[in-house]
Amino acid sequence: MRLALYQPDIPQNMGTLLRLGACLNVSIDVIGPTGFDMSDRALKRSAMDYLSKTDLTRHLSFAQFLDSDQRNQGRLILTTTKTDQIYTDFEFKETDILLLGRESAGVPEEVVEKVDETITIPMQNDMRSLNIAVAGAMILGEALRQTTGFKATGFKNK
Amino acid sequence: MRLALYQPDIPQNMGTLLRLGACLNVSIDVIGPTGFDMSDRALKRSAMDYLSKTDLTRHLSFAQFLDSDQRNQGRLILTTTKTDQIYTDFEFKETDILLLGRESAGVPEEVVEKVDETITIPMQNDMRSLNIAVAGAMILGEALRQTTGFKATGFKNK
Repeated sequence: MRLALYQPDIPQNMGTLLRLGACLNVSIDVIGPTGFDMSDRALKRSAMDYLSKTDLTRHLSFAQFLDSDQRNQGRLILTTTKTDQIYTDFEFKETDILLLGRESAGVPEEVVEKVDETITIPMQNDMRSLNIAVAGAMILGEALRQTTGFKATGFKNK
Repeated sequence: MRLALYQPDIPQNMGTLLRLGACLNVSIDVIGPTGFDMSDRALKRSAMDYLSKTDLTRHLSFAQFLDSDQRNQGRLILTTTKTDQIYTDFEFKETDILLLGRESAGVPEEVVEKVDETITIPMQNDMRSLNIAVAGAMILGEALRQTTGFKATGFKNK
């Protein structure tokens, strides 16, 4: 299981997701450009000392990500508000790559065209979106529950 | 289902959880004291306009929360790193109140003594904790999956 962040635009959220990746032993792909770098103060504050413990791969562009070994290990699953496929009804595989869009704007159409599946977190009718780190955590938790069941090597409670 | 925050100490995380509550139609209890108030700039920035759409009840102290109508609607379930009960193995009920501790220090022993159950998110051996908003989102997503299945009134995808 991998978590891929498309052009993250809020460093705090990226830091929080890097910390999540370290805690759950999930590798992270950051797809650039990002508008900030790894020395960003807000990023470092939210990632804390987990930053050095995250298995992180940075890709300069979406095109470069598509050509990478990381991309080609499994299906690319986009979380979006523009689908009816509820994430808890979706059947995840251990090799899936869970893709999150930008906090502000999701992903452009040319990215949607390249994904294998789209999933969503149901929300109240008049609500727009969840914080991206929160959405990523919910999806990742469900994907791990269905696949490794948090029983992978290294988990305290296996 | 309710989400209760024990003496939240990071306004951004509280704001993110208020937004989550609004989006998922989950009522929030904030148990004080908090060290910041509802006009806090970081809180408002992370809660955005979802703040006014959150069903929020504030309790001045844990003792006052224990005496409240909100507390007495169901079991009190604490998320903590100090238990072996994995949240995905736990059987949630629709009336549960999911309690989160402080980002910095969890909850004191006198709070642990008052809860009905404790649950945890498994992490890698050498990791300490997840961001509190991320942890709350994972627990809440699983609790809703098991109970209402996101099919309650108001959800777009019911």
